[in-house]
Amino acid sequence: MENLKPMYEGKAKKIFATENEDEVLLYYKDDATAFNGAKKASIASKGILNNTITSMIFEMLAEKGIKSHFVRKISDREQICKKVEIVPLEVIVRNVAAGSMAKRYGLEEGTELKTTVLEISYKNDDLGDPLMNDYHAVAMGLTTFEELNGIYEQASKINEILKEFFLKQNIRIIDFKLEFGRTPSGEVILADEISPDTCRLWDMTTGEKLDKDRFRRELGDLVEGYTEILNRLQK
Amino acid sequence: MENLKPMYEGKAKKIFATENEDEVLLYYKDDATAFNGAKKASIASKGILNNTITSMIFEMLAEKGIKSHFVRKISDREQICKKVEIVPLEVIVRNVAAGSMAKRYGLEEGTELKTTVLEISYKNDDLGDPLMNDYHAVAMGLTTFEELNGIYEQASKINEILKEFFLKQNIRIIDFKLEFGRTPSGEVILADEISPDTCRLWDMTTGEKLDKDRFRRELGDLVEGYTEILNRLQK
Ligand SMILES: Nc1ncnc2c1ncn2[C@@H]1O[C@H](COP(=O)(O)OP(=O)(O)O)[C@@H](O)[C@H]1O
Ligand SMILES: Nc1ncnc2c1ncn2[C@@H]1O[C@H](COP(=O)(O)OP(=O)(O)O)[C@@H](O)[C@H]1O
Ligand SMILES: [Mg+2]
Ligand SMILES: [Mg+2]
Repeated sequence: MENLKPMYEGKAKKIFATENEDEVLLYYKDDATAFNGAKKASIASKGILNNTITSMIFEMLAEKGIKSHFVRKISDREQICKKVEIVPLEVIVRNVAAGSMAKRYGLEEGTELKTTVLEISYKNDDLGDPLMNDYHAVAMGLTTFEELNGIYEQASKINEILKEFFLKQNIRIIDFKLEFGRTPSGEVILADEISPDTCRLWDMTTGEKLDKDRFRRELGDLVEGYTEILNRLQK
Repeated sequence: MENLKPMYEGKAKKIFATENEDEVLLYYKDDATAFNGAKKASIASKGILNNTITSMIFEMLAEKGIKSHFVRKISDREQICKKVEIVPLEVIVRNVAAGSMAKRYGLEEGTELKTTVLEISYKNDDLGDPLMNDYHAVAMGLTTFEELNGIYEQASKINEILKEFFLKQNIRIIDFKLEFGRTPSGEVILADEISPDTCRLWDMTTGEKLDKDRFRRELGDLVEGYTEILNRLQK
């Protein structure tokens, strides 16, 4: 990694160019941020846990027919992925009201929903990743209706797979954030990560929060929660 | 009006029950509010101007085949309307980026859009009328996908009609807010008002703002702007 050309440093990962110009190296840092960067910490081994969990999930999704950027995990903190042009949208799937949705609409966290919610926000830290609808995204030239429909279709399939996957570990997936990227051939595939940083995961029996809300809301040791998830997945 | 039973007082109108239980009386007040009620004033004759302009627009829309709650104007400030159960959504149509959309996404006011934007927000003053998408509205039981599709179809038709209508008066309709209501028979029809309080209307030649932004942003006398609109419509 030391010899590779850094391309971008985000809040949780660094991206490096590799000799293969179709691929990038993703390096998972220990940095934790919340509230659009207003709360920050470094949490030893978080990067290792997230890289391991994301890799397991992307491999499992590939087996179920979901194409993604993931190529292979090459070390504790490193993955090789296909280089994509990220669609500048955060795609959120919600099975239960929590987080910003609960707050925005005055719902109690944990409220059951009459339908699964798909949501997009504009991936723009300066603006605070504002919620948008399909018309906004297309009106601003961020995507097309066709691309969005493809993204929603993939997001729904991924949700069905993840619900079942976590249910087997006695975990309920409350909501999660996805990012999609465009390959040079114009295909739109799942990218970025799926980890306890980007999902809400509650123990089915106790309701205990095992995800990043432990950090956001000081609900207990983050590494303990992430390790519990990893242990269940490795069973 | 004095003998009628008050049903509801909103920010701009009062509603009264009438002898006919299928109808209500709408009384247009002079109250002006902005920023969810944070800015307030009473502006002499605003109610008269809005009642007159709304009535002309609803009559014109009826001629073009748009069903609405409007029955007839009975005085300067009063209309008889069909009583409906208001769908708790503000439906916004945008032809150009302005107001909250421009602010939320960091766009300059006046930015042209790659597609017309339809937008809904949850009609809830305590929450500040937050933006939502179709999934949110259905997940919370506020409407159904079918009802929403009907509403969007009507909103689009109304936009086409209003664009042409105002263009003839050398006015560009930048955006506007609609409300829809359910009749006892379950039909969903246009309700509430379409006035300079609920539209952005810019002079095509000078760009002068003739609408409520005059009040929100202290851009000049509000009554002058509204009177200018009425004069052009009455030509
Ligand atoms: N396969 C990929 N190719 C290019 N960029 C990617 C890929 N996967 C993820 N990214 C981007 O890498 C960046 C770094 O990730 P992260 O630290 O999570 O950033 P952020 O601060 O935006 O959350 C993000 O902008 C993400 O969209
Ligand atoms: N035909 C109708 N039947 C019942 N309620 C209506 C009808 N048309 C409009 N309303 C409602 O009348 C209320 C009063 O209007 P207004 O003063 O503009 O209220 P607001 O403060 O919500 O903007 C609003 O809640 C509006 O939705
Ligand atoms: Mg990220
Ligand atoms: Mg109103």
